[in-house]
Amino acid sequence: MKGYNIIKIGGNVVDDPKALDKFVLDFANLPGQKILVHGGGKEATRLSSALGISTKMIDGRRVTDASTLEVVTMVYAGLVNKRIVSKLQEAGCKAIGLCGADGNVITAHKRASQPIDYGYVGDIDTVDTGFLKMLIGNGITPVVCAITSDGHGQLLNSNADGVASSIAVAMSQEDPTDLTYCFEKIGVLTDINDPDSLIRSIDSISYKELKNNGVINSGMIPKIENALKALEKGVVSVIIKSSENLLQEISTTIKL
Amino acid sequence: MKGYNIIKIGGNVVDDPKALDKFVLDFANLPGQKILVHGGGKEATRLSSALGISTKMIDGRRVTDASTLEVVTMVYAGLVNKRIVSKLQEAGCKAIGLCGADGNVITAHKRASQPIDYGYVGDIDTVDTGFLKMLIGNGITPVVCAITSDGHGQLLNSNADGVASSIAVAMSQEDPTDLTYCFEKIGVLTDINDPDSLIRSIDSISYKELKNNGVINSGMIPKIENALKALEKGVVSVIIKSSENLLQEISTTIKL
Repeated sequence: MKGYNIIKIGGNVVDDPKALDKFVLDFANLPGQKILVHGGGKEATRLSSALGISTKMIDGRRVTDASTLEVVTMVYAGLVNKRIVSKLQEAGCKAIGLCGADGNVITAHKRASQPIDYGYVGDIDTVDTGFLKMLIGNGITPVVCAITSDGHGQLLNSNADGVASSIAVAMSQEDPTDLTYCFEKIGVLTDINDPDSLIRSIDSISYKELKNNGVINSGMIPKIENALKALEKGVVSVIIKSSENLLQEISTTIKL
Repeated sequence: MKGYNIIKIGGNVVDDPKALDKFVLDFANLPGQKILVHGGGKEATRLSSALGISTKMIDGRRVTDASTLEVVTMVYAGLVNKRIVSKLQEAGCKAIGLCGADGNVITAHKRASQPIDYGYVGDIDTVDTGFLKMLIGNGITPVVCAITSDGHGQLLNSNADGVASSIAVAMSQEDPTDLTYCFEKIGVLTDINDPDSLIRSIDSISYKELKNNGVINSGMIPKIENALKALEKGVVSVIIKSSENLLQEISTTIKL
């Protein structure tokens, strides 16, 4: 079977047991070859706080000192990843939890400390698609967290959206691959408070118009620009939808 | 290639960065097909303490309430497992970290709450040897922590020695399998303070004599009795040695 779907979920699912249970069932029932990528930031912030480690965010990225790296490794690769994997087994989906160090599947390099020192934050270099395909070919669904490794013994904290798009771009070099970002809204909306204002499809031309006319809110701009970059690198389509609607068609589809 | 070696390390290696670095290099250089099983109890106790969760041990087993289960999942499956895996990649050993939920590789059931309620402690039921062999056959070395799953979404805290012997017994049903327990001593000693008193080999008959004569100290008795049980179930040999001597012959070998 050809083709892959890379699904990314964020904190709104991971932190809500009911939402996670529903999502896990939907994901297990999603047909085709798939990979799940997850965040878990809120839980990491809670653990940091309980341990008296202050959380510092710059432009939405977590500044990751040595203590914070331990926290995110424990929360993303341990608590959240294994919680999702064990629930997927129950739902009949034979899943395996991975961080980038497992099978060296995602390598990254520590981001330069200039202009901003983010600490142990990793920008992704390589994705071992052969390893992922070997697992999937054996009936095993990868569940990937955003902890990566430099391949030389250093774990790093990467961005989960970036992990998802890096995997999608790498897989798309050989097989048709779609990338789905699940978040709390049903898709890209012209009026953030009105679900009826869903934009069903966006391409690079209509995006420019929507942006120039100020129709798309500023939080959505980096998401769509990252989607367009992934499309330029070979991903077939990027779908933005609510994690509640994984099996429904309600979404915004972005194509070139 | 036939045959497997299941190596178990405990807290004395996991908690000591220098010892771990040396062990990881030795393990990477160990020839043959191998699986690493690790503990991490001291680190779990430290995290519990930092979070204000009291640690209660009965007969050396951690009483595991819901909060403690989160702690051990974070420490064993996250922090310690990924630390070892990332170091193994650096040493040229393509490793993958697993808990029992990953690929449903080890299932367990929650221990009955009578006579002692250990909470979320799991006694092992099944080991998916096909899954482990599939990974090893693809050049990937499993690194297994003692978090298991009941297959129905519940993670459980199992004993790392028990995980190692369960894997060894299961693998030995199809292929010759050895089990190596690494700990802080060089093997079974007649005088615990004298390395020259190492007993090179023990069988079920000499064990009875050593036990009856009071030569073996009480802490070693359950270790050897567990080893004899594993041998009765098909494991070729159980080796007890220091984690510093993984590549040396200095050890106690237990055979039936």
